[in-house]
Amino acid sequence: MATNSDRQVWVGFDLDGTKMLAVVYDDRFRPLARLRKRTRGHDGVKGGMKRMAATISEALDAAGVGGDRLAGIGVGCPGPLDLDRGIVLETPNLGWKNAKVRAELEKVFGCPAVIANDVDAGTYGEYRFGAARGARCALGVFPGTGIGGGAVYEGTILRGRKGSALEIGHIPVIRGGALCGCGRRGCLETVAGRLAVSAAAAAAAYRGEAPKLLELSGTDVGAIRSGPLAKAIAGGDVAVESIVREAARTVGWAMAGVVNTLAPDRVVPGDGLVEEMPDLYREEVVAGLDGQVMPSFKGTYKVVVAKLGDDATVKGAAAWAQQTVAPSEA
Amino acid sequence: MATNSDRQVWVGFDLDGTKMLAVVYDDRFRPLARLRKRTRGHDGVKGGMKRMAATISEALDAAGVGGDRLAGIGVGCPGPLDLDRGIVLETPNLGWKNAKVRAELEKVFGCPAVIANDVDAGTYGEYRFGAARGARCALGVFPGTGIGGGAVYEGTILRGRKGSALEIGHIPVIRGGALCGCGRRGCLETVAGRLAVSAAAAAAAYRGEAPKLLELSGTDVGAIRSGPLAKAIAGGDVAVESIVREAARTVGWAMAGVVNTLAPDRVVPGDGLVEEMPDLYREEVVAGLDGQVMPSFKGTYKVVVAKLGDDATVKGAAAWAQQTVAPSEA
Repeated sequence: MATNSDRQVWVGFDLDGTKMLAVVYDDRFRPLARLRKRTRGHDGVKGGMKRMAATISEALDAAGVGGDRLAGIGVGCPGPLDLDRGIVLETPNLGWKNAKVRAELEKVFGCPAVIANDVDAGTYGEYRFGAARGARCALGVFPGTGIGGGAVYEGTILRGRKGSALEIGHIPVIRGGALCGCGRRGCLETVAGRLAVSAAAAAAAYRGEAPKLLELSGTDVGAIRSGPLAKAIAGGDVAVESIVREAARTVGWAMAGVVNTLAPDRVVPGDGLVEEMPDLYREEVVAGLDGQVMPSFKGTYKVVVAKLGDDATVKGAAAWAQQTVAPSEA
Repeated sequence: MATNSDRQVWVGFDLDGTKMLAVVYDDRFRPLARLRKRTRGHDGVKGGMKRMAATISEALDAAGVGGDRLAGIGVGCPGPLDLDRGIVLETPNLGWKNAKVRAELEKVFGCPAVIANDVDAGTYGEYRFGAARGARCALGVFPGTGIGGGAVYEGTILRGRKGSALEIGHIPVIRGGALCGCGRRGCLETVAGRLAVSAAAAAAAYRGEAPKLLELSGTDVGAIRSGPLAKAIAGGDVAVESIVREAARTVGWAMAGVVNTLAPDRVVPGDGLVEEMPDLYREEVVAGLDGQVMPSFKGTYKVVVAKLGDDATVKGAAAWAQQTVAPSEA
């Protein structure tokens, strides 16, 4: 049987509403193999967890690694979690409830498993391998459909008692403002999330102020995603550029409150809109932040765009498993 | 000479613009003696630190404790600090600059000394001995002249790289709002700090809407402090009550963003207005919070009014010295 020191392979897993991604890493977090399957909502919890295990098994096979060399598995997942018990309480996209992910993976693979919120895992990935390396406190800001956030503080993911923290998309910015998906009013997402940006851009296209966008994706907010927005701006749609800049600046303005609270030395915007237009987005986040943080905090943080892209969550989850299981090696 | 195990006395020190307070505690943090001197701005750094040391010496004498039994000194102080080097960088109220408080006290008393932001020390005091005992993450909210904040996360004070964090009075709440003392616009303090409350109450008194307050303290915002505000409300000034309630609810609303960020299990309002009208203030903070936090966060925190009053900072500073110097005993 393999001794503990032979167990030097880590698996990262990214579970989301559309895909399952498993990556096998060696002890220096170089990828040995990666395997992706479509998530199938109709599988239910039992079938879905079986599919997770199959994805990992196939990835291990592809890497030519036996299960006896597996040191641990880290899973980044959406939705409310019970971190200590390793349970995905609910994933609206998958229709899962109370999925005992940790227990299932530990049973199948005979090694420790941990779960983390996907955005937290992504922030941790940037901290270990990307834009936030060496940071004492890193704040991740990810404007996807909503606005996700995560923080790594002195080497550990900041969290709540049971689940994750850093719900920065729901920081209130307008008292009694527009209704948010969460049920509250005036959350940051309602004015600066991708969906808010898409809606404003759709209206501009409808009014004839964004001809390039109209040509690219019409006026359907579902079609106006980050890619078309970036292309419309590159194609000369001044109105779209102004909408995106305003949203990014608002994110910076609201993040000034989080900087005043956590005093991070690194702020890492990433995902969706940021990936498509990193310079423009970063410029406005910096302007929003620098213009609103406590003057004594100015210059105490750097704003660095995320570097790992889609790999942040899967690699971060694997590294977080290492930090949790074998902290002396991390 | 005394062995280490004889060194079981801790000194807490509260330095502020008006007073210096030293309290000597035994190993279970029961006060043995307390000594208070007026802070004298004209003493300068050198004279001021001498006065600090004299205050501590006299407190030790009053407790009948020799310096050889002193395990450590904790100092809570205002202004930007260099926590690791133990330097008070600036205290506008005292006119100090670069006061090497830690080095000076360690030289004079031959024991370790630590400094902490006064509000952080107060929050830590509530965590160790007061309203936040047993909390995994405690958020202190102290609406004095401005609005101070502190957080204790898994037993440690959340901080910045050099200085303190949790500048919650400067969380932005109104874009392009009123000018704040910090130089920015629309910070929470500008709408809900004690000075903002006093100014609104003074205007109400001037308009004849707050006869009791007018009788008690006229229309001078400098005179309209927490005490008169509370008395005016008790005396029937409905307009004043409405102003204070609205401010407290706004604090709760803004703290929803901090709760969404840090996911504390305890929120502890204290100081000034809260001490004078704990029930009223707490009620509005709860309403503001409960109505705005992410719905999944509701019920994950308790709001408990601070219990230690003026002793929070001095006792918290002493206990923080213990946590820093002898964590196994804390």
